Amino acid sequence: MKKSLSNHLLTVGSVAFDSIKTPFGQAKKTLGGSATYFSLAASFFAQPSIIAVVGQDFQHRHKQILQKRQIDLSGLRVQKGKSFAWTGEYFLDLNTRQTLKLALNVFADFKPQLLLHHRQSPYVFLGNIHPKLQLQVLRQIENSKLVGLDTVDFWIEHNLKELQKVLKLVDVFVINEAEARQLSKERNLRQAAKKIIRMMGKTKSPILIIKQGEYGLLMFYHGEIFNSPGYPLETIFDPTGAGDSFAGGFMGYLAGVDKVDENHLKRACIFGSVIASFCVEDFGTKRLERLTKKEIQNRFAEFKHLTHFEIK
Amino acid sequence: MKKSLSNHLLTVGSVAFDSIKTPFGQAKKTLGGSATYFSLAASFFAQPSIIAVVGQDFQHRHKQILQKRQIDLSGLRVQKGKSFAWTGEYFLDLNTRQTLKLALNVFADFKPQLLLHHRQSPYVFLGNIHPKLQLQVLRQIENSKLVGLDTVDFWIEHNLKELQKVLKLVDVFVINEAEARQLSKERNLRQAAKKIIRMMGKTKSPILIIKQGEYGLLMFYHGEIFNSPGYPLETIFDPTGAGDSFAGGFMGYLAGVDKVDENHLKRACIFGSVIASFCVEDFGTKRLERLTKKEIQNRFAEFKHLTHFEIK
Repeated sequence: MKKSLSNHLLTVGSVAFDSIKTPFGQAKKTLGGSATYFSLAASFFAQPSIIAVVGQDFQHRHKQILQKRQIDLSGLRVQKGKSFAWTGEYFLDLNTRQTLKLALNVFADFKPQLLLHHRQSPYVFLGNIHPKLQLQVLRQIENSKLVGLDTVDFWIEHNLKELQKVLKLVDVFVINEAEARQLSKERNLRQAAKKIIRMMGKTKSPILIIKQGEYGLLMFYHGEIFNSPGYPLETIFDPTGAGDSFAGGFMGYLAGVDKVDENHLKRACIFGSVIASFCVEDFGTKRLERLTKKEIQNRFAEFKHLTHFEIK
Repeated sequence: MKKSLSNHLLTVGSVAFDSIKTPFGQAKKTLGGSATYFSLAASFFAQPSIIAVVGQDFQHRHKQILQKRQIDLSGLRVQKGKSFAWTGEYFLDLNTRQTLKLALNVFADFKPQLLLHHRQSPYVFLGNIHPKLQLQVLRQIENSKLVGLDTVDFWIEHNLKELQKVLKLVDVFVINEAEARQLSKERNLRQAAKKIIRMMGKTKSPILIIKQGEYGLLMFYHGEIFNSPGYPLETIFDPTGAGDSFAGGFMGYLAGVDKVDENHLKRACIFGSVIASFCVEDFGTKRLERLTKKEIQNRFAEFKHLTHFEIK
């Protein structure tokens, strides 16, 4: 879990304010967004940088949350106006959420421009934003080792062609099972995975991760499959950011060890699941803010206990 | 996977005729029922005996399916009338099924009577039938090492008191997550498990297995949790019998090795999942009929590859 200058991990995504209601309480205008959760999660393993835009409502105390975890904010532009804002509610089963309000605000006219050290980042993650913006970032990248991609149902429905363009240029694709079925038009996940991997043209053996919410995930890699379970938590306070935290832990771990073989891909899945399991234990970014490396290592060991069995 | 006279596994449940329709085809009056699937699955590891009743429509060729796998049918009574019959349909997602017709027939007046060697079976599984019948079987058991129990939503809704009586007398309880939530009135599975384990009074550390369909299962044991994933199949033909096959593989493995420690409980979960994954590959009992020990061992090894990761 060492950090070094060679282990830079760049992400583009939203830095936003979330207003969240769950069966257990609510939070108003709490720091959120895909790039926020991603980089907080990644910061335990690698050196994350954020490419995003915020409004004037982004204050010193918000900046501090990210800076305390040594996240590079040289790519975070502050612009006149308000930050991207999301208002949503979760219901009892915590798997379904309803977006009550969504305001792009300063994100509406965002044109990502990368500094030199961003362009040379070996690890890159294109968080969930318009595929056009993901493509703009990707075109400025000069010498990447591993590029990851996230998306949501909205872009699959409305911007499929642009999304398919990005998909051809990445090594790792992280989506949930509903999105995998939507994109592939296949109900069976193994058949869906086959089709989606064929859409990914960059590498001979692309990596596809299909998230299954509380049930964990399946990673399809090199013709093989790996399963990481969901960590069976006794209390889930707020599922916001779980997916981004997984991606941050996954990409962060790989950037930190700077190795992408089978062994490290599997471990990255588990570390991603570990961070995601902590993320949902409190509102917003609170749990990630007070998370320690010791806690991460302990839960990693619990995942072993949860999944491993003797062969003889 | 040796069989010996000391590794007897008795099950009470239905031997029935199923008429099944799935998106991939249909089968009419095919041999089914919880005791059928359970004992076929268990037969790869232990010596299963069936306590059940069938009608005159149960023919020699049906008997042969069970006898070919050396299943003891001395407790299978043939009675005037028709066998228990189920007609159902599965839809595209294969997780929801609709019962179109259900006829108890000879099962309506079934009064299970056990022979001496049944009463002395060290391993017993009370398959999904009326809790009153489960209790009748249990009262005749003389010296069991491990008793397992299955049920469905219908008994939880209509015969809760009788079910709770049985629950206090068993060591292992196998249900699906919807039933676990229904029984415990808890949404969170860990909290549901806590409550259900408190309902189980017999042993100090009862074993609760919550099945999660295609996502696998969670086993709660000795204050710990173990996760077995669902095997990601490319084609699922017919989900009928998957749950009973899991239970048969699980109990059968334990009876076969005659050990119930942590290591063997975990392995039993995996062997149960292995057999269930084969069961759904063809209609009815077809896949289990032609299943080999070699295939079981190979898929067991695949489960390791699917779940194990390096610690360092």
